[in-house]
Order: sequence, then structure tokens, then C-alpha cells
Amino acid sequence: MTAALSSTSTQRTVDLGPAVELVSKEEGHRQPLAPEFVSAEDFSPLEVAYDFGRVRREDIESGPRNIWRYKKLLPVPSNVEEIPNTEPGCTRLVRADRLAKALGLKRVWVKDDTGNPTHSFKDRVVAVALAAAREFGFDTLACPSTGNLANAVAAAAARAGWQSVVLIPSSLERAKILTTAVYDGNLIAVDGNYDDVNRLATQLAAENETWAFVNVNVRPYYSEGSKTLAFEVAEQLGWRLPEQIVVPIASGSQLTKVDKGFRELGSLGLVEETPYKVFGAQATGCSPVSTAFRNGHDVVQPVKPNTIARSLAIGNPADGPYVLDTVNRTGGAIEDVSDEEVVEGIRLLARTEGIFTETAGGVTVATTKKLIETGKLDPEAETVLLITGDGLKTLDAVEGRIGPKATVPPSADAVRAALQS
Amino acid sequence: MTAALSSTSTQRTVDLGPAVELVSKEEGHRQPLAPEFVSAEDFSPLEVAYDFGRVRREDIESGPRNIWRYKKLLPVPSNVEEIPNTEPGCTRLVRADRLAKALGLKRVWVKDDTGNPTHSFKDRVVAVALAAAREFGFDTLACPSTGNLANAVAAAAARAGWQSVVLIPSSLERAKILTTAVYDGNLIAVDGNYDDVNRLATQLAAENETWAFVNVNVRPYYSEGSKTLAFEVAEQLGWRLPEQIVVPIASGSQLTKVDKGFRELGSLGLVEETPYKVFGAQATGCSPVSTAFRNGHDVVQPVKPNTIARSLAIGNPADGPYVLDTVNRTGGAIEDVSDEEVVEGIRLLARTEGIFTETAGGVTVATTKKLIETGKLDPEAETVLLITGDGLKTLDAVEGRIGPKATVPPSADAVRAALQS
Repeated sequence: MTAALSSTSTQRTVDLGPAVELVSKEEGHRQPLAPEFVSAEDFSPLEVAYDFGRVRREDIESGPRNIWRYKKLLPVPSNVEEIPNTEPGCTRLVRADRLAKALGLKRVWVKDDTGNPTHSFKDRVVAVALAAAREFGFDTLACPSTGNLANAVAAAAARAGWQSVVLIPSSLERAKILTTAVYDGNLIAVDGNYDDVNRLATQLAAENETWAFVNVNVRPYYSEGSKTLAFEVAEQLGWRLPEQIVVPIASGSQLTKVDKGFRELGSLGLVEETPYKVFGAQATGCSPVSTAFRNGHDVVQPVKPNTIARSLAIGNPADGPYVLDTVNRTGGAIEDVSDEEVVEGIRLLARTEGIFTETAGGVTVATTKKLIETGKLDPEAETVLLITGDGLKTLDAVEGRIGPKATVPPSADAVRAALQS
Repeated sequence: MTAALSSTSTQRTVDLGPAVELVSKEEGHRQPLAPEFVSAEDFSPLEVAYDFGRVRREDIESGPRNIWRYKKLLPVPSNVEEIPNTEPGCTRLVRADRLAKALGLKRVWVKDDTGNPTHSFKDRVVAVALAAAREFGFDTLACPSTGNLANAVAAAAARAGWQSVVLIPSSLERAKILTTAVYDGNLIAVDGNYDDVNRLATQLAAENETWAFVNVNVRPYYSEGSKTLAFEVAEQLGWRLPEQIVVPIASGSQLTKVDKGFRELGSLGLVEETPYKVFGAQATGCSPVSTAFRNGHDVVQPVKPNTIARSLAIGNPADGPYVLDTVNRTGGAIEDVSDEEVVEGIRLLARTEGIFTETAGGVTVATTKKLIETGKLDPEAETVLLITGDGLKTLDAVEGRIGPKATVPPSADAVRAALQS
């Protein structure tokens, strides 16, 4: 697929910085950098391989206050910070003592990715996808999505002056349509469910040589963007790795890339190679990876999602087996939580740390609680929680459960009485 | 008011860093630092006065990546970064070439304050208010609000482990109630309009000695937080001042404090004292300051607001006369724009730069356009736009005006046909 384009792209000089080739995840088949995502040899996902050379902390610290400070560790052009794109990253790592106390943990950090341009971690992956896609000669950024990804793609394309094509199910909530439509790209509502939209995207990616579907044909580059979460956590901790990290699982890509990021930092000598455990979080209503982990399987049985955590509702997660590998290798675990617990997780984080996360963040917080209760997470070890999206986008999850403490007439006595009741 | 508390506070040692006293804005009467906001001598607003000593760029650059890097220029304790609080600030300054081209400007920067913890500049002022309030012995953070301020106060109190009392009109939209209620403070709905709620807040601030109403009794400290917008713009430009800056006007406090911030940087030798012009932006439906400017008045006639830019809808802006002073002194101007233009401003910024702002940001963008068209803003001079809030909070402003380009059946041909139509 995209054969014409990739043959063109091998003729021109593609500058993707330290990236040198693509490697298949199963059997390690190597092939030139191109907008392809599945190995023709073993049909496994393709991943970017690098020749990093020497990378020093000073190179990073003197870079811009966004993910491009890590450009020597990403598949992006060496002048990437000069090219119009969004500038996500360098979000807060918050020392969360009140959350720690509530959970019975010794030391907790919250990586608050709601500070990104469109308020989710998707800005990271989309920015890297856009930078790589430009090198391959694409001129349109595209995706199928039901939420965060749609926002991120439409916004990044707008900023770069690119066309965008965003495919959504026509039944999507009005608010999610507005937050994508405002960027004035080509937002197309498709009469069908998310599976229909996804299939359509794969077909269009194969047929349209100038469309970069961020999570299809340029997925190997796109997914590398999640490494920047690991890079930032390590740098913000003072160039060291945490002992435990809890990561939500949708396709599973983010979890494996956070691990990849930590390993790259270690192998480059940017941090000491101290042991860390990676934990995965799912909603019970879409918990194929958690179920496989619990049953000791190394393959993941697809499920039909039914959870309020829609941004994690991928029933057949592409990177599920690799998540199991990572979690088992590092000595972590995976758990899943009910929708009720998800809402409690959202409320706990808001109440203790003033951070309002979307349902995916509720999954991460609630799963952390469960992992402690089941003895899988060490309460004495330093723990990082990845909070990857914003509560403003999933207001329906808390609707009907929270509200004013009281409604009173406009008198000081009435306010005081309400507070004492 | 708060007499008992302020007499206590003069006995204990209050550490508010470089802040030394309060000064009345009209006649310059001086009084000790206390939680008071109006001079008993001349009834004008009280402002914080400082003894800065020596402040070097290195002191700031080696500080945390939030507003506390400027602690030597704020009324906050010298160990402020160690005290639980939100950590707002260090938001993006985006080089906005596509917006510049659309507006016919040579060089534009957008200060994107949607990246703050609760996605508006209010996190800055509330964080400073909380830090000062703690020194004065308060234990409850309070405010009357209809939106951004409510979010910021409830979140900051949660993070600090304080009580909060947030008063809102009971008719407030459900989404704005949810985004405050989630932090689990004391959210009180008041049967009345915003004026009723405001009056109630002033009464409660006078009667409750342990309640810090951020924009009432600790307002002199609170409002200093807006200076950090100026500090960041200057630092992010490489320690220099822009030639022109466009600031939205609600109470007018932000505009005057941005100017104060620039002047402080200049007088401390942190930047060269190059000339700059401050421009003010209002919605026509609430444009008392713009009207006074146009008529050459130095007082501001109150109005009854009627605009979709609700976060700017203050009909009797407390700092209106000082805004006129600032704008006239720097050679700037003030303009106002219709609600229709506000929506166009929101859409223009989203389309060109991928930044989705609330109605206040739409006012800023649209006013900039008008200031260029009327020859008041120099298109050749470098211009900074303050974008102070997030579009996710004012979705109703774009509702009904934007949507999908097309709704199609799930086929590739249908998508292609829709794009060509």
C-alpha cells in the first residue's frame, strides 16, 4: 500500500533525524523508512529503529520547552522545531501528596497531560506523525476518531496549514463534533459505528497516496511520540526513572512506548538503568489485556467494548501482546475497574490534587487503588500515574453524580446555614 | 473589614517576599500588608508595593517551570514553591505566522493560557491569592463566579487541602456547575443574578474572618498574579518587551498588571526599557471602557452587559480608569467588537493556529483585526495577543455555526465525493 508514494520517498532524501529503518516486531525484518505499518514478511507491526549516536542531557536541556527538545530520540527532521506544527509536551509532573495519602502510597507523581494544546497526550503522537508525514511528501493529515485524536489531528493540521480529513461516527455527541469542527478541516460524519469508520480509514489510507492517516500508514512514527511521556517523566524527576508507573491501555501502544523510552534513556546513559515496573490500567467493560494477563495468556482475545471510558474502548488492541511482554518483563501487573470505580477515580484525583481528568484518567487512578489493595503495587515505591486526558471532554461521566452542596436565597445567613448542614 | 484578622496579621510575621506595604492607587497612602482592598483614606483600591532588591535573570531562569520562578517579583512567601498550591504558568508563547498573514500583520505571538491547570489565566491570580491568604492565616478560599474563577478557586483549594466556598448564580449552565463541583468544595448556588452573588460575597468577606475571597479581601495580592503574563512574554521573547500587546478587558485589572509587569522588568534592568503600546479589547455588548476611550473620558460609565463573552461581562469595571491611563500613556487604543465578530475571532484563531479559545479570546482576536483596520495598531510592529481562556468552556458560542462538512455512508467513494463537493 501507498506503493507509489513510498517508492518516491526512497528516491528523495528523507530526514527523520536518528531514525534509520523500520523493523518488524515479530521477526526483526528490516526495511527502509517509509509510510508503512505492517511487515510484508511476517505481517507484524513495523517499529522505528535508530542510530542515536551520542545524546547528552545538555542537548535536551538546551532545547525548546516542548517535545522537540527530544528530537534526537524521535523520527523527526533535525530542524523540526522550525517547521509549523503544534508544540505539545513539557506538561506538569505534579508531586501528589494528598492523592498519595488517600491511596496509602508513600510517594506519587501525576503526569498531567491535560496541559497539551488540545488537552490530551494525542497532541504528542500527532505532532510526531505530522513531522514524519511531511518528510514523506504527504499534504493531508487524517484519522478515524471519536474524540481526542480528532481534536489533535484537526488542530495540528490547522496550525501547519495542511488539509485534514477526520472521520467520525455520525452519532457522536455534539460537543465532540464542535471541538473538532472549529479547526475548519474536512470533518466527515459517517453513518456507522466506530468499527465501520476504522475500516473505512484503512481503505482510504491504502487508496489515497497523499493522505497520512496518523494511526494507520504513518503509525510507526506516530506511536513513537508516546516515548516523550517517558522522557519528560525522567527529566522532570532529575534524570532518573521512577520505580513504578501506571499507564492506561487502549491499543496498548502508549504503555509499550513508555517502556521503550525508559530503556532508550538507560542505554544512552542519560539515566541510570534502575529497575522499574510498568502497570496497565483498563476499564472492566473493555479489558481484553487485563483478562489475558490474569489468565496468564500471551495472546489477547478481542471483546466488544461497553464502558464509559470511551477513549480506551478498543476491543482488539493491536499492541496487546506487547503490553503483556512489557508488564511481565518488568514485574508489573494489569488490573481493570468498573465504571463506578472510574468515576470515583476521577473524583478522587479532583478532590485531592485539583486535577480534573477524563474517564481514562479515572481508570488509571482507580486501577492504582486496586493494584495496591491486591498487593501488586508496592505502596513504599515511588509511583508515577499517567493522566492523559481532560475531564472537560467527558462531562457526561460525572453528570448527575455531582452538583452544588445547596441552593440558597441571596443572604449571608442562608449561605452559613447551608455550610453547617 | 476583616479587622480582627488584620490586627492579628500585623502581630505575626508575614512573609510575602519582596512585598512591603499596600499603597492606595489615588493618593498613595501607605499602610501595612493586610487582607484589605480599599484605602480607608481615599477609598481607592490598594495595590502592593515592593522592595525588590536585586533580581537577576539567572534567579528566574533557575526557578521552577511555573509562575513561582517569578517569586521575587510577587507578594508570596520566599518558600512558595514548597507549599501545596497549583503550579500555573509557563504556558506557550506561540509564533503565529498564519494568523499574522490572515490579519495582515508582520509578526504575531499568541500567549496561549489555555495550558494552565484549569485552562484559564485565573489559575495565576488564584495561586498568588492562595499563597498570600495562607500567610494572613486564612483557611478557606472563596469567590463569587460564573465560570473560570470558580474552576480555579475550587481546584486550587482542593490541591492545597483547603476548604473552598464558591458562590454561583443558580441559573448557571450545567457544564459550568460540573467543572467546579468535581473538586468537591462547598459550591453554593444562589437564587439571584451575578450582581446578587457579588454583593453577597462582599458581605460574607466582611463577616467571615477566615474566608479569603480571592477577588475581594485579598484582591491586591490576587491581581498581582496577572503580572506573570508579562514576565513570561518578556522571558519567552528572550528577555525583551514586545512593541504591541492586545489584552481583553473585564475588570481591567489584567491589562494594568501586564503594564505593571513590563515596567517592573524594565526598572529592574531585566529587560531594556523599549517602548510598548497596550491595547484593550472588549465586546460591544459590554464595552464601558472602550466607550470611555472613544469619547476621551477619564471615567467609565457603567453598563448592563449583554454579550456572549460572559467572562468579560463586567458592566462596572473596577480598574476602568486605570486602563484608560495605561492605554493613553503607552499610546495604545481600545476597541470593541460584536458577538458575531467574537465568533469569527474564535474561528480564525482555530483555523490558522489550531488554538481553540473561549469567547474572551475571540474578543481579543477580533479586536486586533479591527484595530488594524482602523489604523490604530501598527501592522509592521511585533504584536502579542493574550489568549486567556479555553474554547471547551464556551461551546455554546460556536454551537449551531459549525459542524461536519458532510454526513456520508461508510464508503470510500462517498468520502471522496463529499470532499470534492
